Amino acid sequence: MRVRALVKRSAGPGFVLAEVPQPEIRDDEVLIRVRNAGVCGTDVHIYTWDAWAQGRCRPPFIVGHEFAGEVAAVGALVTDVRVGDRVTAEGHIVPPLSYFSRTGQAHVDPATRIIGVDRDGCFADYIAMPASNVWHLDDAIPFEIGGIHDPMGNAFHTALTANIPGSVVLVTGCGPIGCFAVGIAKAAGASCVIATDPNPTRRALALRMGAHEAVAPQDAADAVARGSRGLGADVVLEMSGVPAAVHQAFALARPGGRVQLLGIPSSTIDIDFATEIIFKGLTVYGVVGRRMYDTWLQMTQFLRSGAFDPTPVITHRLPLEAFDEAMRLIQGGEAGKVVFEL
Amino acid sequence: MRVRALVKRSAGPGFVLAEVPQPEIRDDEVLIRVRNAGVCGTDVHIYTWDAWAQGRCRPPFIVGHEFAGEVAAVGALVTDVRVGDRVTAEGHIVPPLSYFSRTGQAHVDPATRIIGVDRDGCFADYIAMPASNVWHLDDAIPFEIGGIHDPMGNAFHTALTANIPGSVVLVTGCGPIGCFAVGIAKAAGASCVIATDPNPTRRALALRMGAHEAVAPQDAADAVARGSRGLGADVVLEMSGVPAAVHQAFALARPGGRVQLLGIPSSTIDIDFATEIIFKGLTVYGVVGRRMYDTWLQMTQFLRSGAFDPTPVITHRLPLEAFDEAMRLIQGGEAGKVVFEL
Amino acid sequence: MRVRALVKRSAGPGFVLAEVPQPEIRDDEVLIRVRNAGVCGTDVHIYTWDAWAQGRCRPPFIVGHEFAGEVAAVGALVTDVRVGDRVTAEGHIVPPLSYFSRTGQAHVDPATRIIGVDRDGCFADYIAMPASNVWHLDDAIPFEIGGIHDPMGNAFHTALTANIPGSVVLVTGCGPIGCFAVGIAKAAGASCVIATDPNPTRRALALRMGAHEAVAPQDAADAVARGSRGLGADVVLEMSGVPAAVHQAFALARPGGRVQLLGIPSSTIDIDFATEIIFKGLTVYGVVGRRMYDTWLQMTQFLRSGAFDPTPVITHRLPLEAFDEAMRLIQGGEAGKVVFEL
Amino acid sequence: MRVRALVKRSAGPGFVLAEVPQPEIRDDEVLIRVRNAGVCGTDVHIYTWDAWAQGRCRPPFIVGHEFAGEVAAVGALVTDVRVGDRVTAEGHIVPPLSYFSRTGQAHVDPATRIIGVDRDGCFADYIAMPASNVWHLDDAIPFEIGGIHDPMGNAFHTALTANIPGSVVLVTGCGPIGCFAVGIAKAAGASCVIATDPNPTRRALALRMGAHEAVAPQDAADAVARGSRGLGADVVLEMSGVPAAVHQAFALARPGGRVQLLGIPSSTIDIDFATEIIFKGLTVYGVVGRRMYDTWLQMTQFLRSGAFDPTPVITHRLPLEAFDEAMRLIQGGEAGKVVFEL
Repeated sequence: MRVRALVKRSAGPGFVLAEVPQPEIRDDEVLIRVRNAGVCGTDVHIYTWDAWAQGRCRPPFIVGHEFAGEVAAVGALVTDVRVGDRVTAEGHIVPPLSYFSRTGQAHVDPATRIIGVDRDGCFADYIAMPASNVWHLDDAIPFEIGGIHDPMGNAFHTALTANIPGSVVLVTGCGPIGCFAVGIAKAAGASCVIATDPNPTRRALALRMGAHEAVAPQDAADAVARGSRGLGADVVLEMSGVPAAVHQAFALARPGGRVQLLGIPSSTIDIDFATEIIFKGLTVYGVVGRRMYDTWLQMTQFLRSGAFDPTPVITHRLPLEAFDEAMRLIQGGEAGKVVFEL
Repeated sequence: MRVRALVKRSAGPGFVLAEVPQPEIRDDEVLIRVRNAGVCGTDVHIYTWDAWAQGRCRPPFIVGHEFAGEVAAVGALVTDVRVGDRVTAEGHIVPPLSYFSRTGQAHVDPATRIIGVDRDGCFADYIAMPASNVWHLDDAIPFEIGGIHDPMGNAFHTALTANIPGSVVLVTGCGPIGCFAVGIAKAAGASCVIATDPNPTRRALALRMGAHEAVAPQDAADAVARGSRGLGADVVLEMSGVPAAVHQAFALARPGGRVQLLGIPSSTIDIDFATEIIFKGLTVYGVVGRRMYDTWLQMTQFLRSGAFDPTPVITHRLPLEAFDEAMRLIQGGEAGKVVFEL
Repeated sequence: MRVRALVKRSAGPGFVLAEVPQPEIRDDEVLIRVRNAGVCGTDVHIYTWDAWAQGRCRPPFIVGHEFAGEVAAVGALVTDVRVGDRVTAEGHIVPPLSYFSRTGQAHVDPATRIIGVDRDGCFADYIAMPASNVWHLDDAIPFEIGGIHDPMGNAFHTALTANIPGSVVLVTGCGPIGCFAVGIAKAAGASCVIATDPNPTRRALALRMGAHEAVAPQDAADAVARGSRGLGADVVLEMSGVPAAVHQAFALARPGGRVQLLGIPSSTIDIDFATEIIFKGLTVYGVVGRRMYDTWLQMTQFLRSGAFDPTPVITHRLPLEAFDEAMRLIQGGEAGKVVFEL
Repeated sequence: MRVRALVKRSAGPGFVLAEVPQPEIRDDEVLIRVRNAGVCGTDVHIYTWDAWAQGRCRPPFIVGHEFAGEVAAVGALVTDVRVGDRVTAEGHIVPPLSYFSRTGQAHVDPATRIIGVDRDGCFADYIAMPASNVWHLDDAIPFEIGGIHDPMGNAFHTALTANIPGSVVLVTGCGPIGCFAVGIAKAAGASCVIATDPNPTRRALALRMGAHEAVAPQDAADAVARGSRGLGADVVLEMSGVPAAVHQAFALARPGGRVQLLGIPSSTIDIDFATEIIFKGLTVYGVVGRRMYDTWLQMTQFLRSGAFDPTPVITHRLPLEAFDEAMRLIQGGEAGKVVFEL
């Protein structure tokens, strides 16, 4: 049987929508019929075939790493997943007995292979996944939200590894993950959430997600001073990777505060460790992926209770065939989350 | 100058409203004109002169330990408090250089002396307090809420030393502190807050404070099973001291969960450590007082943001002269928080 | 092929040394040639067929849950274990995708099945184990020590989930696990380790493992007062399950201290929560099993460095045929750790 | 009465040994007869009058911030310190009711004033200190060790805010504080302590303090790979401030590891956050001063038990008159800790 798949065929720009064989599964894997899939900046890097993609990816492979769907088949050794289950999945595949997997640190295992990057991904009618990576969706959670658990999970990981209840939280960068983080911080009891972004459309989205204030970066210092009575932010969630925002994260954190770095700077940054980090007694945490599976559990709990709803962040829903438009939308910088409906 | 004060005059039941000399202050103390004062079960113990009171208290002394007011005078060495400041205060007075004070554990210092119990208290027009125990009130926080910072602080201490965001929280006992705890857990992002109390008036108050469900104790197991998909509560806040509730706290906590014990059982309880605590891998935390002053800061942050509002818990406002009625109201078990207005 | 195995044949006292078929393995399992196996109090419960054993176990099954050996065969899906590897294993078998497994709490999963208790165990020439439960032994760690990783792991779990460096540690109960805990606390930088046991032989072993002082229970209060300058123990490791020791654990912990409960009381204990736990602000932690696999990693690190050596605790080495003697030795209360050599 | 004091008299290089009036004390202060005082790199900055000193200090003032001695007089309000007490003191003077002081973060309070930098210091026969900053010395701890509690405290703060028991620890920089950190990590149960320094004299001192291995920086990667089986260091204590060492700290920490930054880089450093911090999921902590007073308590516990002995680090003992020689010794880079005996 042949099925649709969005393929990175060769070393160069673009994707191809192709017919491919339906994937086989091993005894410890499951086959999933994909229903929704989120589009990520990483996909754009692979599409444009930038320096990072050239260094990391080995075409041909199917792209896409965020998705949800229904289980279509299960391997002989799979005991906790059944055909028909509504699921999403962690896209980082880690050796199950590695030092990192066994000590609660699978998210940083250097041996991680990512679907849609290092092996076939989810922009396809079907994907084969290790049963150990499957995460069940409640009936009340639509596939559309299931399909963006990966980036929401980044935001949950960033926000909830800091102490949020009662804190003044600064979120620098209001792309989709930044907007998720705004909503999570608010739902987790932050006393004040200030969001910054140069783009007014994104600031408006941050306000809709619950920010007490959303300002341009040049106004962030004043907003934090007001919100924290001059102390500085207890927690900064740096979601942009912009060098000026990283400096601002350190500058606007209060002494003794915590800075969570999720945004990936594309170049080096010249840091004055003495004044930016050490004399302030800051704690800085580098965020990669999602904690397996504490983050997934927290995400499910917030979605179940309704305290957090990511829906406003989804601004575009497209068929898989519209992949070129999806790439353009993300490159344009005005879109929230773009999702494929399969 | 002579001022009003509610005095425990001698070893026996009752209080006397008397005129006493306005207190003197030391160089490191401040004099506070009391405006509001909360009435606590401890005051009732002293009023009825029960076994605990007979063992602990040495009349004569002025009773009362929860209050807010305005600073009327400051000692020569006081630098951070000024006449006219709106303040409340931590009523546990701890030696400032003790092992406990210096290591963030002042709340458990055995040398603690409590105002209104071990020395003169706040049911009076004026009270002298060490400047180190004073806590400033924001202009936006009324004296009435300032006057109940002590029991609210118990609730903040109980709730926020557990991991609340995303958790299923069971609160056993919906007296004033239990109702505060319900509101705090909700504001801090609990995914489900279940409250129990045999008294329907108190359950109604818990619902008003934000509980997702409030049930009689015999219905708690079902409610927790529903709210936690059969796992058990991530966190139990035991606010009643009732032996059956303590057993229920252990039974309804999920394996690996956390039980915070604030309610003071009046008798011993026969515990099966193997099945109630050890095999479940529970963590049990005994809550006393308020962390100095992390708890006070958290409380201020939640009140400032408006995420938590204790006002519905205050059911009765009385003049100091109505002290007999205040005691009766609390003994009746239907009242929420009773406060004096001075 | 038929191999030796110590079998609980029927519901009644005793074991039988029998010839049984060599176990089959599934594709995700490994077959291990057992070389050393530790004997535990649990085995004695099953041997004597006491009330606990009658309620829990379903004969016939092979007993024993602590062991080390060499891998003799691996299933088709096993990638991280090879024939000839020197290994031990976690004997608690937990569903791999359970809520507990996925959130770092596999040790408290109620669905756990224990080898030698709920399914066939390790007092046999061969045992089949899920590959996910296998733990590799360094070349430098002899099988004899590999064979007692399970109870050592209990001790590491108990000690290292408290804050040990610089602390005053009280260990109540100097059986094998208590003696391991003494050595671990010392190696992890406890400033003072006090051990208690009524049995002078066991106290002598505790001293050999590094206790600063080992005293009879009635002398514990004085020893702790001396060692802590009157404050009380920062951490108490309760390893005995004796009711008087549990009371003593609470009484001798300092205010704000931590009590780790590993010993399993055989009856209920009447607790005055107010004075024993709440007013002291204690944290109490119920210890079950070993954290998977943080505890195993810590254990390996301490054994590798040589900072902790359990060898003195092993007092008896017996062939499997001497199982009746092994049971008698443990019942006698004088033995340290008893191990089978296969 | 006039007493000796080492004075920074004016804006320019050098110190002057002068006779000054014995300090007066306030009612909440104590007067201390200084017996030993440690010399620090900060003193050299003030002596040479470098850019930092010119920006920070306002002559004239008495220099020196590390000391121990006997209490000679106490103010009227001081209750916990008595004449004749053997003491040292925290040299960071923080407003007692500040947000930072009250929430366990006094060490990062921007309002801190440091003795010997912002106000009169301890290179003098007498110093006046707030009673709240005094720390008692056990009879068993000599003044010489009391006199270096400040830098030892830096090392304790750096080491013990990481999880040391069982960890592989890399210490970059073997000056006095680095050597203290080596000894502390070893005493707290590190499974492997690797120290790096370009200077062989300092490496020899690190070995004497307990390092398993001490290597030149260019050999650090190999040593860490050996000590950690290729994983990287669990914890890196960066004590040098050298840019290459900061890069190495990030590079040699294992994924998910922790980097403690104490050394103060004198210039900015160009950081590739993506590869050095974020993708590795590192936690980075800026260390300033000592936690008040948790660090002091830990230090006392390790000194009492004898598990940590800093004596080998003290290489030179000089009279106050030899201050020029003391400065030269530190500038030479071969000395360990240099102390004045008064």
